[in-house]
Amino acid sequence: MELKNYIGGVWRHSAATEFATVSDPATGEVLAKTPLSPPSEVDMAATIAAEAFVDWRRTPPVKRIQPLFKLKALMEDHFDGMAEMIVLENGKTIGEARGEIRRAIENVEVACGIPLMMQGAVSEDIARGIDEFMIRQPVGVVAIVAPFNFPGMIPFWFLPYAVATGNTVIMKPSERTPLTMQMGIELMEAAGFPRGVVNMVHGGAETVNAILDHPTIKAVSFVGSTAVAKHIYARAAANGKRVQAQGGAKNPLLIMPDADVEMTTKIVTDSVFGNSGQRCLAASNIILVGAAKEIFTPLLQKTAVSRVLGHGLDDGVEMGPVISGQSKERISGLIEMGVREGAELLVDGRSFTPPSALKEGHFLAPTILDNVAIDGELSRTEIFGPVMSLMHAADLDEAIAWINSGQYGNMASLFTTSGGVARRFRYEAQAGNIGINIGVAAPMAFFPFSGWKDSFFGTLHAQSGHGVEFYTQTKIVVERWLKEWSRQF
Amino acid sequence: MELKNYIGGVWRHSAATEFATVSDPATGEVLAKTPLSPPSEVDMAATIAAEAFVDWRRTPPVKRIQPLFKLKALMEDHFDGMAEMIVLENGKTIGEARGEIRRAIENVEVACGIPLMMQGAVSEDIARGIDEFMIRQPVGVVAIVAPFNFPGMIPFWFLPYAVATGNTVIMKPSERTPLTMQMGIELMEAAGFPRGVVNMVHGGAETVNAILDHPTIKAVSFVGSTAVAKHIYARAAANGKRVQAQGGAKNPLLIMPDADVEMTTKIVTDSVFGNSGQRCLAASNIILVGAAKEIFTPLLQKTAVSRVLGHGLDDGVEMGPVISGQSKERISGLIEMGVREGAELLVDGRSFTPPSALKEGHFLAPTILDNVAIDGELSRTEIFGPVMSLMHAADLDEAIAWINSGQYGNMASLFTTSGGVARRFRYEAQAGNIGINIGVAAPMAFFPFSGWKDSFFGTLHAQSGHGVEFYTQTKIVVERWLKEWSRQF
Amino acid sequence: MELKNYIGGVWRHSAATEFATVSDPATGEVLAKTPLSPPSEVDMAATIAAEAFVDWRRTPPVKRIQPLFKLKALMEDHFDGMAEMIVLENGKTIGEARGEIRRAIENVEVACGIPLMMQGAVSEDIARGIDEFMIRQPVGVVAIVAPFNFPGMIPFWFLPYAVATGNTVIMKPSERTPLTMQMGIELMEAAGFPRGVVNMVHGGAETVNAILDHPTIKAVSFVGSTAVAKHIYARAAANGKRVQAQGGAKNPLLIMPDADVEMTTKIVTDSVFGNSGQRCLAASNIILVGAAKEIFTPLLQKTAVSRVLGHGLDDGVEMGPVISGQSKERISGLIEMGVREGAELLVDGRSFTPPSALKEGHFLAPTILDNVAIDGELSRTEIFGPVMSLMHAADLDEAIAWINSGQYGNMASLFTTSGGVARRFRYEAQAGNIGINIGVAAPMAFFPFSGWKDSFFGTLHAQSGHGVEFYTQTKIVVERWLKEWSRQF
Amino acid sequence: MELKNYIGGVWRHSAATEFATVSDPATGEVLAKTPLSPPSEVDMAATIAAEAFVDWRRTPPVKRIQPLFKLKALMEDHFDGMAEMIVLENGKTIGEARGEIRRAIENVEVACGIPLMMQGAVSEDIARGIDEFMIRQPVGVVAIVAPFNFPGMIPFWFLPYAVATGNTVIMKPSERTPLTMQMGIELMEAAGFPRGVVNMVHGGAETVNAILDHPTIKAVSFVGSTAVAKHIYARAAANGKRVQAQGGAKNPLLIMPDADVEMTTKIVTDSVFGNSGQRCLAASNIILVGAAKEIFTPLLQKTAVSRVLGHGLDDGVEMGPVISGQSKERISGLIEMGVREGAELLVDGRSFTPPSALKEGHFLAPTILDNVAIDGELSRTEIFGPVMSLMHAADLDEAIAWINSGQYGNMASLFTTSGGVARRFRYEAQAGNIGINIGVAAPMAFFPFSGWKDSFFGTLHAQSGHGVEFYTQTKIVVERWLKEWSRQF
Repeated sequence: MELKNYIGGVWRHSAATEFATVSDPATGEVLAKTPLSPPSEVDMAATIAAEAFVDWRRTPPVKRIQPLFKLKALMEDHFDGMAEMIVLENGKTIGEARGEIRRAIENVEVACGIPLMMQGAVSEDIARGIDEFMIRQPVGVVAIVAPFNFPGMIPFWFLPYAVATGNTVIMKPSERTPLTMQMGIELMEAAGFPRGVVNMVHGGAETVNAILDHPTIKAVSFVGSTAVAKHIYARAAANGKRVQAQGGAKNPLLIMPDADVEMTTKIVTDSVFGNSGQRCLAASNIILVGAAKEIFTPLLQKTAVSRVLGHGLDDGVEMGPVISGQSKERISGLIEMGVREGAELLVDGRSFTPPSALKEGHFLAPTILDNVAIDGELSRTEIFGPVMSLMHAADLDEAIAWINSGQYGNMASLFTTSGGVARRFRYEAQAGNIGINIGVAAPMAFFPFSGWKDSFFGTLHAQSGHGVEFYTQTKIVVERWLKEWSRQF
Repeated sequence: MELKNYIGGVWRHSAATEFATVSDPATGEVLAKTPLSPPSEVDMAATIAAEAFVDWRRTPPVKRIQPLFKLKALMEDHFDGMAEMIVLENGKTIGEARGEIRRAIENVEVACGIPLMMQGAVSEDIARGIDEFMIRQPVGVVAIVAPFNFPGMIPFWFLPYAVATGNTVIMKPSERTPLTMQMGIELMEAAGFPRGVVNMVHGGAETVNAILDHPTIKAVSFVGSTAVAKHIYARAAANGKRVQAQGGAKNPLLIMPDADVEMTTKIVTDSVFGNSGQRCLAASNIILVGAAKEIFTPLLQKTAVSRVLGHGLDDGVEMGPVISGQSKERISGLIEMGVREGAELLVDGRSFTPPSALKEGHFLAPTILDNVAIDGELSRTEIFGPVMSLMHAADLDEAIAWINSGQYGNMASLFTTSGGVARRFRYEAQAGNIGINIGVAAPMAFFPFSGWKDSFFGTLHAQSGHGVEFYTQTKIVVERWLKEWSRQF
Repeated sequence: MELKNYIGGVWRHSAATEFATVSDPATGEVLAKTPLSPPSEVDMAATIAAEAFVDWRRTPPVKRIQPLFKLKALMEDHFDGMAEMIVLENGKTIGEARGEIRRAIENVEVACGIPLMMQGAVSEDIARGIDEFMIRQPVGVVAIVAPFNFPGMIPFWFLPYAVATGNTVIMKPSERTPLTMQMGIELMEAAGFPRGVVNMVHGGAETVNAILDHPTIKAVSFVGSTAVAKHIYARAAANGKRVQAQGGAKNPLLIMPDADVEMTTKIVTDSVFGNSGQRCLAASNIILVGAAKEIFTPLLQKTAVSRVLGHGLDDGVEMGPVISGQSKERISGLIEMGVREGAELLVDGRSFTPPSALKEGHFLAPTILDNVAIDGELSRTEIFGPVMSLMHAADLDEAIAWINSGQYGNMASLFTTSGGVARRFRYEAQAGNIGINIGVAAPMAFFPFSGWKDSFFGTLHAQSGHGVEFYTQTKIVVERWLKEWSRQF
Repeated sequence: MELKNYIGGVWRHSAATEFATVSDPATGEVLAKTPLSPPSEVDMAATIAAEAFVDWRRTPPVKRIQPLFKLKALMEDHFDGMAEMIVLENGKTIGEARGEIRRAIENVEVACGIPLMMQGAVSEDIARGIDEFMIRQPVGVVAIVAPFNFPGMIPFWFLPYAVATGNTVIMKPSERTPLTMQMGIELMEAAGFPRGVVNMVHGGAETVNAILDHPTIKAVSFVGSTAVAKHIYARAAANGKRVQAQGGAKNPLLIMPDADVEMTTKIVTDSVFGNSGQRCLAASNIILVGAAKEIFTPLLQKTAVSRVLGHGLDDGVEMGPVISGQSKERISGLIEMGVREGAELLVDGRSFTPPSALKEGHFLAPTILDNVAIDGELSRTEIFGPVMSLMHAADLDEAIAWINSGQYGNMASLFTTSGGVARRFRYEAQAGNIGINIGVAAPMAFFPFSGWKDSFFGTLHAQSGHGVEFYTQTKIVVERWLKEWSRQF
């Protein structure tokens, strides 16, 4: 099945000559072919989106949110269908996929509040008889470039805010997992967005560069690896665009000796191995402070080995495959590197053999490396796979110093029952999303998703008020109306 | 048909011994009997609402808004049905009723944004190591007392915010127009609000006093006449409650000589005669400045007489009856008073004879009194009927002085093409809702409905952020966690 | 020395025939006579304030804050002088007085931000071509009625916001401690507030009632006892005014067994005995949970007896007298009542004998009653003196139930090192100001001072955004300017 | 006089080998030599600023604003001195310089409100028992690069917010006008900022590039030409920094036939010729609509020729020189180009001869070119000098189309008395700062300075809330504290 682009309300065959293959990571079954659309199709989408902008921008916000309310209802209606599609193209479990769609819907919900969120400010009498106010007007045509790991959620970190504020959008989903957003676009169409307001162009690197260079596109939102995020930020900025580019991570998670044993073990394991480790908020470096080492090491080990792998749609399955064979190989190589750097292989997931129906699946079971060196390469490299690195710190000071020495700043989590440890941690840990007894500190849709350091490039983050600010331009109006003029009557 | 109370998710027969009659104002047909519930039923509702509060308050805001999203969808689905019910029990036209329901829905839409609207504030380091934050927690059981003129809209100025913020509610609709809210409650039930969260108790003055005196009820929202609003404010305050009580109005509307002729004539007439004049934002005193007198007097006269009266559900009908025979009599008496005070009767709507099918209807056609004296009694008395008082001011200064001499401050409207006149008007006119080339300056749901002077008693108004502030208590938390405590590990 | 009223920028002799005596509570030395001004002087102040309002309201906010910036600088310059005056008329220690002035200044600092805080909101295109905005305009003449216990701070919870938002003010300080505000007014005069913007009328109950009844006064802010606060709320509301009335308290403070021993002992003692217990945020009922009883009872006892009493201006003094002989008697009576109710007198401060120079002072040393019954009368009566009631709860559930059974809701404090206990406490404790390891949870000036239950009557609290909302009326403007009108050119 | 850098609280001799000359543009008198500091000195400043950040960041906001309050007072005290210094090094008139300092102070005033502006948000119960909040933490070391035309104001668009939010700063003033900020830094030193919090490094292009490349510097704020702004944005973004870069402008100003004649003539002339045209909000293309041509052309001509040139410190002088001989030459060339493109030279300011004392001054009198072609090069080129281009549009449609065809979007102004024209203009004109009967629509300090299109690169603008957002990183904290943990007691 060759996918089509959606431009100006029409599903259009791409003139692409190259394609990416979409396959079920658990079975290897080919699901679709994604066209790597040429720049000319980006140009067509930009032109049509710019035309649609003229009227969409003049549509009152209270009208613009009506399709969003319908979209919310439609996504609830197609909740299971969307979740299943995520499982098929991404490999995660149905439970994980459901959580993902819930998060997507929450962003639609928040964007339904645009009439209030978009309000500007007024000051009467900045001087006698002179008033000043600030309104927000949309930016124009904006683009969203999304990754493979949350095909149903990440587009919605941006899309609802972009359209609700009056922009028209070009969406480029991951070429490896484009099917969920195909459903998403179909639902948006059914929800009643006018033609040209939401467009989707499939593609790869060349397509992205065409977006970055296109003069009609005023803003770019991106989530992906740090290397690409840097490229996006630099190139889009050189072209004068607004940019928000979210990169990779290497999230530390710190366990204190006073942490709740049962809860911590469960949550930590879920954080590391959930979504097969393929999320930018997965915990990776587990730092055990002092006596926590003895308490938690065996428990984590035990919980890891008990994790049930399989096809994400099957009952009882707790973990699916990684996205591709290439990815599996890369992760295996990193495990090897960890061992070479002196780490001890407590649990080796590489030997996992799936049942025959899944023999083409890219499975890798939970893996635990102990005594990973804080100054080694593994401790600094994003694995994006189900690998837990255990590290042992003497005390909180050392643990926080380790955290803050890292290149990334997406998340830092802490497990403790102590209010004092928690306060110090959240005050000092250099990461934008902090979890206290939380394994995956994903901000709710009404908070900005706040990566720091090399996990984010730009100024304004995804979601909520940051989204509104990013997708609108402030316009200041200073008005003088002489009182004398009212005297003519 | 005897109406039932809705308490704790159950429709309950009232032990009332007195009843109000609900009838179609256009035909006199009896539609229902409203029980004037005794205090014991208020007490039952308060007790059950307080029990429901325990869990509802602990339900996360993101969950509490789910029934609101459903309610929005259900109200869209039952849009026509609700509008028709309004026509039947209130008498207004179907177009007016539709506009009313649209406004009701808009408030539901805004309240869907509660997770964001309800956010509190945090300050890190108010002193070294000490943080402070403010959260909002619901007030408890709150009551809403609504009037007859907007049976489908005014309850929604309050209800969505009250429940979304975590309160449980006792609703008392007008005993004359309770049927629309009966539908409203049925839709809320279908939307999934838990039992006891929304309750409805029918009744009259005694029922209201029971609400004002009940210690479990923490806040009262009211819309009605100024006399009753004053009573509500005084009595509820004496009982220590939060109160917001919206009263009557006598809205001035000012036409400048430079006003757009066609648009102004149409809008002004609609403002005065729409809803048969029975709205708190109806223009009543039309002040013609200078040369506007000659331009607009004949046009207003002509437009008034052409207005088509009839049953609100019939095609082409532009105006329905007033609510009751008693009301019709009162209005006729006020017209008489105007004439006695020296006004000239340009158009006399009292002589209108309805078709025989509507001969029991309380019809009164558009009436225009010219040269109404600014210092007479008519110019200061709320008519709440389709009567336009024309007044002639020499200039803008005089007109604004007239406006500001009034007792009420619900609305003041201006018609002009001049930016300078508009600025001066909005700066100086003492009313909380200002229209510039707008006949009925009803604030959108994301703004507070801002009556001033004797049009409002309390501090925080209906709708939006004011609603959230009114229905929540701020709770300040100051926290100290010594850094030393984190050193034990 | 007979004090004068300050009306319209002039210090005016009052025609009062009755006077209150201002004396140093530590020595009995008479400092001044406060006139109990008759209603006619309230009327004069209201009239002059209304005249001043005309221009002050039209003075741009950026200009209105200039005297506030000067006032901040002047208060820093006269910091010690003001603090000493507080000591003289109130009796507290110089350290406590300094803290008080610091808080007063912080409110001036926050009110310097009025241009931003007072901004309204704008929505472009609520419908095609129609815009809506909300501005804030001042209320008019407002009154502040202040208590004796923080003569230099409480007026500033209101004053800076009231004037910065464009209102003119009538201030009535406590007739027992009017001297600090006399200095305050002198500084405001020096700071450049125009005549009539700030006025001060001395007086007692009759003066207050004149304020509550005066039609020109639109809003009343009060801090005092609950009985008077209720009166203020009821009477001002019956007169249609905005009201915020802060009442008394009976603050519980809960100590968990895991609390930091040294810090807790010190802070708890300071909370109970600081300002000789005469503050609405003083802890009164100290609830020791479980094993905390054994740990803390002897330490609290020891710390209490070591407290050094004397004249607040003398070095090393940690506690001053209570405000009056009458007050001392009342407190002694309450101690007696506690004993009658079965409490054990661990420390009896009634026997304290001051040095001869202070023999006329109203001294009462720290007193501790143990095993005070939660259902007795003492545990529910505000003492407003240096008396600590110890109570012993089996567990957190019981302790929180005790707290929530109380009539008041000004403050509830908790001492623990556990994050879990803290979260539960702040979620469940029914009080508006929560302290976690904080003895006196006074909100910073940029948060509302959030009393609950019988500690507060009204809706909007003192300080910050609540002050701005309380002292301004929202005005909504809906504007339509037809595009066609721009075509004439 | 060779200027020194100010690093770590010490005035340090620069090792620069190249220098820029600072001279009085009106007399040519050399005032100082500005070192073009080498990268090593940027590095030293960055290192010291990073050290100072450690403690400054931990200083509570209420403490951090204390030096700002002192700075406000000091700037008022040295108001005239600072204004005179601006005149000397920049050439503008003393009146213009005073206005500039007033604007600088206003930004200090707004930044005094940081404790409130910096507050984060809290949501209780994002799920049962889980809370989430957002705090703002400073970015670290930030840099400001300022232009010559407002040496005393533009640094304060950034500085007060940067330090108040807890960052430490490296300031690079224009090498042509560094003296005013030298005074500014001296005042900041006197105001009590700790060493290393504010630093100043003089320099040129190489110095700026060192700033853009330095890894310790996390954010860059710039105002200057569009060419340099683009460079700043691209290079700083390529280095992963936050950037806000304000560029040039070519501001259209539209006069309708109904505009107030006297006021418009005066304000328009002031906008074009004020500061000798050297401001980014100077009107440049004056578009006369329809009959406005006949009314205003002669009046503008007359007003232009009457403008009194001279030394900015001399009484009665209305206009000073341009910044340099080079600049004068460039402007003269542009006038020539305009003539070549077909414009008519109504007033030629190039022939102006200053009095002998100013014969070395770079004077150029007001110049008016009529019938400048909208599609010519002059109409698109920023002149940055006292040159008015008159253009004649048939109607409003044409005029707005002309405006929106431009490359820049700093300001668009309109003169009219019609509310309808104003609304349409502010809705449609593509510029971020709109003036209605305002010649220089500079936003007050409590609004963002909102350039659009090629007048701005980045997302968040200077001043107020945008400044706070730009200079802080959001940090999200998600907290779970199990209720069970509180059961242990």
